[in-house]
Amino acid sequence: MKIAVAKEIEVGERRVALVPDVVARLVKQGVEVWVEAGAGDRAFFSDAAYEAAGAKIVSDPGYLWWEADVLLKVGVPQEREDGRSEVEMLREGAVLISFLNPLGEPAIAKRLAERRISAFSMEMIPRTTRAQSMDALSSQASIAGYKAVLIGAAALPKYFPMLTTAAGTIAPAKVFIIGAGVAGLQAIATARRLGAVVEAFDIRPAVKEEVQSLGAKFVEVQLEEETVAAGGYAKEVSEIAKQRTQQAIAEHVKLSDVVITTAQVPGRKAPILVTEEMVAQMKPGSVVVDLAAEQGGNCACTEPGKDVQRNGVTIIGTIDLPSSVPIHASQLYAKNLLSLVQLMINKEDKSLQLNFEDDIIEAACITHAGEIRNSRVKEALATLVGIGNG
Amino acid sequence: MKIAVAKEIEVGERRVALVPDVVARLVKQGVEVWVEAGAGDRAFFSDAAYEAAGAKIVSDPGYLWWEADVLLKVGVPQEREDGRSEVEMLREGAVLISFLNPLGEPAIAKRLAERRISAFSMEMIPRTTRAQSMDALSSQASIAGYKAVLIGAAALPKYFPMLTTAAGTIAPAKVFIIGAGVAGLQAIATARRLGAVVEAFDIRPAVKEEVQSLGAKFVEVQLEEETVAAGGYAKEVSEIAKQRTQQAIAEHVKLSDVVITTAQVPGRKAPILVTEEMVAQMKPGSVVVDLAAEQGGNCACTEPGKDVQRNGVTIIGTIDLPSSVPIHASQLYAKNLLSLVQLMINKEDKSLQLNFEDDIIEAACITHAGEIRNSRVKEALATLVGIGNG
Repeated sequence: MKIAVAKEIEVGERRVALVPDVVARLVKQGVEVWVEAGAGDRAFFSDAAYEAAGAKIVSDPGYLWWEADVLLKVGVPQEREDGRSEVEMLREGAVLISFLNPLGEPAIAKRLAERRISAFSMEMIPRTTRAQSMDALSSQASIAGYKAVLIGAAALPKYFPMLTTAAGTIAPAKVFIIGAGVAGLQAIATARRLGAVVEAFDIRPAVKEEVQSLGAKFVEVQLEEETVAAGGYAKEVSEIAKQRTQQAIAEHVKLSDVVITTAQVPGRKAPILVTEEMVAQMKPGSVVVDLAAEQGGNCACTEPGKDVQRNGVTIIGTIDLPSSVPIHASQLYAKNLLSLVQLMINKEDKSLQLNFEDDIIEAACITHAGEIRNSRVKEALATLVGIGNG
Repeated sequence: MKIAVAKEIEVGERRVALVPDVVARLVKQGVEVWVEAGAGDRAFFSDAAYEAAGAKIVSDPGYLWWEADVLLKVGVPQEREDGRSEVEMLREGAVLISFLNPLGEPAIAKRLAERRISAFSMEMIPRTTRAQSMDALSSQASIAGYKAVLIGAAALPKYFPMLTTAAGTIAPAKVFIIGAGVAGLQAIATARRLGAVVEAFDIRPAVKEEVQSLGAKFVEVQLEEETVAAGGYAKEVSEIAKQRTQQAIAEHVKLSDVVITTAQVPGRKAPILVTEEMVAQMKPGSVVVDLAAEQGGNCACTEPGKDVQRNGVTIIGTIDLPSSVPIHASQLYAKNLLSLVQLMINKEDKSLQLNFEDDIIEAACITHAGEIRNSRVKEALATLVGIGNG
């Protein structure tokens, strides 16, 4: 069994699918690991470190992709500058494990099925206790939440902590975090570490205790309807609920020095939670850090990858945040992959074995043996085809 | 008595000498305060806010400078784009209070004396208990130390805190802070807040307890000579002491993820403490934040205002750090000025009164009645004239 690690080609992607430590663990288990030359460069893992861990360094990507039994990647397969398509570079029947964004760009599932690839989407890892160690969405979202606070603190024209100095007392910064998922919770923890006064909002009342346990105040809104979707994610809600939510958000945005928005709906455009009117009400010098910028943004003023100024307020449209912490982002992602790959290795003869009785294998697999397996991906694709035909 | 606040014209300077709160306090005391139009813009204090505090907004800088009894500034007076020199814009006999860098650029003292300006240098505030509330070097250095950590954390490809996650444990970042003055101590406190493991070095053994009380490890070197100069600053030491110090620094730099250097000698080029060889020994992905970049840098690789890459190590030559936190930097500086200005106001008739019996007035005044008063400035000027004549 041969596992190959491809070099990421997307601009701004600094992560690598496996780190040398994890390579060493696979090699020790009797798995052959190939790593594309320079794959770890932007995450500060050298070819020499991979070689020392027992990997074979392969310079020709065409050879590496074609020979792989299991190809590990971080980002969605791309069209290459040399004209080749990464999906076409895989051998029929090979396994591909990566973020594949199958709900956002379902067309890729069609192509993977046509090529008879067994494709596993890291976005589809179920949110169960047994799958926690494979939950790459969480490991990477946590990094985004951490980094968002550092970016907000660096952009704020004020201190975060309360300080008592000889020249008077500095009041702590007020940070408001919208969305208390993994990214939001890590943002709360980091802002609290830095000494800010933190408030958080989430439409799911169940997260209240977790928010409070991190030392933040939970902003409550009575909605009288179900707000939690399958898998624990936030659900879309009614118009009345949206209005009440907006009102609560507006009140807190106005009083905050830093607002961090983290509301993303998998495969969809992000909801607008901070309107232009709310930004206009903020104090000059305040900062909005929008973690949903790549999905269109939670703030109406957001431009992905840019810092926008509105009446003295800076709106930061963050992109590629996990990539900006590439050592630990890669380390955690590699551990997530390792846990998943373990489920695919036959313990007896170390051969590749896909056991669809296993709920994790079943849930994460989006294409196998020429078929699209995941019903949500099928639906997304049907909608897409519908649009294309309409 | 008329106090005027000039708009800073130096590129990169975002601070303003007085903030509206402090203006209000002066106005309440019966002092007339003039503020140049737009003076607070880059620190997010609007003309309207100054007006509401009781200030008169003046659009013509020539009028404002000439009419001022006391002119308050942040940065050293400049040559203006309109061809005028700020020093020449002051009326004879007026008081100027600002950072004046009289030891670094002593020529300015000569010009101020020729113009018969009573100039007070915020760098010359004595380090006494009574003068603490006026210590602008400290209030601004503290901001630099805080911001240096945010910049280092944002540039590091790792998390700062230790984290226990479903995908394994993240070890905390190792931060090494060289120089435990005000900037260094605030850097220690901030890095500890963010969860890093912090070590600090200073040639003054007396700071050990303070370093330890902030939760950092103090790196000790036996030097067997006096290392503390007047005013509590670090003193220049012998060659043997330098070698021992370098060796200790080298060992700790090598093992650190982030190195923050804060060693500055007033009016002189900063000492090189982190050599090219030490940088070559650091792990790829590590970061050096050099707070002495404007004085030539504590790291041999530093370029002021730039991020330099060496073997995967990023060396950040920070400039204008207090200006990058302009609201609080201005607020603290304004409080420092307010305390000093209080010593110059006659309590009876609210007139300007310079009492040279007061040790703070005496120490901070560098020129008065056509004379250079400060002996260190005289020496610095004599050296400069010597160079010019040699």
